[in-house]
Amino acid sequence: MSAEKSTAGLAGVVAGRTELSSVGQEGRGLTYRGYAIEDLAANASLEEVAYLLIHGHLPAARELDGYRAKLKSLRSLPSEICSTLELIPGTAHPMDVLRTGCSLLGCLETETDPNSAADQADRLLATLPSMLFYWYHYHRDGSRIGFEAPEPTLAGYILHLLHGSAPSEMARRAMDMSLILYAEHEFNASTFAARITTSTLSDYHSAITSAIGTLRGNLHGGANEAAMELIERFADPDEAERELLGMLTRKEKIMGFGHRVYREEDPRSTIVKEVARALAVSPENKRLFAVSERIEQVMWREKRIITNLDFYSANAYHSLGIPTPMFTPLFVFARTTGWSAHIIEQRKDNRLIRPGADYVGSDPRPYVPIDERTEPGR
Amino acid sequence: MSAEKSTAGLAGVVAGRTELSSVGQEGRGLTYRGYAIEDLAANASLEEVAYLLIHGHLPAARELDGYRAKLKSLRSLPSEICSTLELIPGTAHPMDVLRTGCSLLGCLETETDPNSAADQADRLLATLPSMLFYWYHYHRDGSRIGFEAPEPTLAGYILHLLHGSAPSEMARRAMDMSLILYAEHEFNASTFAARITTSTLSDYHSAITSAIGTLRGNLHGGANEAAMELIERFADPDEAERELLGMLTRKEKIMGFGHRVYREEDPRSTIVKEVARALAVSPENKRLFAVSERIEQVMWREKRIITNLDFYSANAYHSLGIPTPMFTPLFVFARTTGWSAHIIEQRKDNRLIRPGADYVGSDPRPYVPIDERTEPGR
Ligand SMILES: CC(C)(COP(=O)(O)OP(=O)(O)OC[C@H]1O[C@@H](n2cnc3c(N)ncnc32)[C@H](O)[C@@H]1OP(=O)(O)O)[C@@H](O)C(=O)NCCC(=O)NCCS
Ligand SMILES: CC(C)(COP(=O)(O)OP(=O)(O)OC[C@H]1O[C@@H](n2cnc3c(N)ncnc32)[C@H](O)[C@@H]1OP(=O)(O)O)[C@@H](O)C(=O)NCCC(=O)NCCS
Repeated sequence: MSAEKSTAGLAGVVAGRTELSSVGQEGRGLTYRGYAIEDLAANASLEEVAYLLIHGHLPAARELDGYRAKLKSLRSLPSEICSTLELIPGTAHPMDVLRTGCSLLGCLETETDPNSAADQADRLLATLPSMLFYWYHYHRDGSRIGFEAPEPTLAGYILHLLHGSAPSEMARRAMDMSLILYAEHEFNASTFAARITTSTLSDYHSAITSAIGTLRGNLHGGANEAAMELIERFADPDEAERELLGMLTRKEKIMGFGHRVYREEDPRSTIVKEVARALAVSPENKRLFAVSERIEQVMWREKRIITNLDFYSANAYHSLGIPTPMFTPLFVFARTTGWSAHIIEQRKDNRLIRPGADYVGSDPRPYVPIDERTEPGR
Repeated sequence: MSAEKSTAGLAGVVAGRTELSSVGQEGRGLTYRGYAIEDLAANASLEEVAYLLIHGHLPAARELDGYRAKLKSLRSLPSEICSTLELIPGTAHPMDVLRTGCSLLGCLETETDPNSAADQADRLLATLPSMLFYWYHYHRDGSRIGFEAPEPTLAGYILHLLHGSAPSEMARRAMDMSLILYAEHEFNASTFAARITTSTLSDYHSAITSAIGTLRGNLHGGANEAAMELIERFADPDEAERELLGMLTRKEKIMGFGHRVYREEDPRSTIVKEVARALAVSPENKRLFAVSERIEQVMWREKRIITNLDFYSANAYHSLGIPTPMFTPLFVFARTTGWSAHIIEQRKDNRLIRPGADYVGSDPRPYVPIDERTEPGR
């Protein structure tokens, strides 16, 4: 077997079937179980999308109320998790904190019934923000936050825990839209990692732990933080253009741009750009938005490379007062819905995911006893 | 794109290149960087194989001494890890403990330089047994073990920590052989998960955490424990044969049998079977070995399905007095060498690993406002 250039990174290789989302059919468009992402972002809440993905249909009003109440009742952390979050230094990477928190929850509340993934998902969805912000506030000022904020939605709960007070309606709505856009995206790297873990018949928490660690990288979820760091570097659009041209000449990768599947437009980016525009009210945020638009224009003009969801998400989060190191964790809160749905789907028709490799190493060679070996370069 | 039956589980799909091992060329044979597994198992130690995989060549005597001394000096655990291991219940799954311990180490000693993977690997190789056995003994009898056992090799250190005393030479040697057989195996599911995590430019500990969670499943590393549970169920070979025939009729999967790549022989199984035979000295272990051989014969006679490495590894570990729930963790200690080498290899020529999926879900459909939704079945 020989690895063609075209299969590097499994680009274009079909690795399985899914009912959950259609990504880039004919290079455009995104639906979750058939519903257009534009409709969901404009009208639904994250809980409705979570229910759609995990339970298979948009919840009726009564189902949604019950689901929200259930998630709300599950927000408290076991004391072992709080103690461990206190032991993890405040300088740790927030994604490492979430990865460890999820893994530890798996030690304390181990999945024993493979049919319980939806329940595990509810518990994890409810506790992930509790973990992140317990750790965050404890190491900032020694406070041990509680988990009883009277917020019925995940979007509200996240903002409330972060800022310690009830968010505005506009902030809640923007957060809900962003979470919906981040909820699900077919066989992206973190989801595919979760499916591989699941394919060995491992448990729910192992699969999500794999996904969190995979999302952390800059070519995936980490791109929203890297994009923010880029945007903040420039004083104005002209400086951005100048510097960007230099970066492109030096063949640097620009984070928040490009996509394995979308080549003409990431439909999520189009939506989140308008969210970011609406939130950019202060002069500072208006300036960052103008810088971002210029970066977008230059990338298109010079390279025909599009913004992906992560680029303007960075602007939106910044305007919402979210510290940059929390951006990728927000992606985790949202994508846990899609990951969970994929775990359930993988289990329904499982086969071990185990590809082959093209061997390009040494020919067979005789063993050399230790006394006859020489150190290279000596 | 349409998913052929043949690509389910990526069977036969080439997902990249590797220099590390050749698995099943023409359906047989295994080399690590060109050296036959038979030679390595007969002559080398795990440290030599680790060095070969991670640093690229078999170490000369001086290099090996230095490497062993370095690993020995790295065995102590940070106090935060000890405290967390005390918080994790003694009833937790040992693989969950290792997954969490690795993830937590990543919070405390975060990889910041992607060129440091070999150092991260040394530290993790040295501490994984410390983590497992600290947790194990603490919850068994409240003792807090130290990490200064005067064992120069990983094989000796593992056995010493488990049993609390110096192992026999024969036990040390058997453990070394087993660790060598488990060290590396191309794009198996856990290794491939580690490579996906790495492909997003995530860190070393995220990648290994993914791998541990993926190895945990019964279709992968978990098979050695499941095989033991099967073997122990039968009083003698005849009962084993009777029961097994029933299981096959009921289409149950027999753990420790079958392989994605090997169809005629798993060369590792041939080696470990002789190790297991030599270790089966007590009447009880002789009986279990006889039961195992019968299971092997029946599976070949009835289904033409071969034993894989996990089957006789179970016998060998049992004879060494290792509790069954520690079997898959031993696989982790060994495979951390291969995983680490694959992380380094993936980084050398990285491209995001992101396959596509065949969408088989709902056609596009109009959004239904919440007041117009009905509950299914109502
Ligand atoms: C997302 C991404 C990993 C997709 O990778 P991919 O499918 O392997 O992309 P390709 O290698 O096919 O890209 C095609 C060309 O565009 C270039 N390119 C792609 N994304 C680029 C970017 N963000 N900045 C600069 N150049 C980029 C590639 O270097 C390549 O150029 P080449 O043909 O001269 O080598 C890639 O676009 C990227 O690294 N983006 C930045 C990280 C990011 O935003 N990730 C979030 C994704 S939602
Ligand atoms: C290792 C394993 C996952 C490989 O999976 P795979 O490549 O998808 O195997 P296939 O589905 O192609 O197997 C071919 C046939 O053999 C059967 N088979 C494979 N392994 C079997 C086993 N251990 N017991 C019973 N039947 C088995 C399959 O059911 C299949 O039968 P079918 O064609 O009637 O459906 C599989 O052999 C297995 O589950 N083994 C048991 C777990 C184990 O020991 N894992 C450790 C691997 S090192």
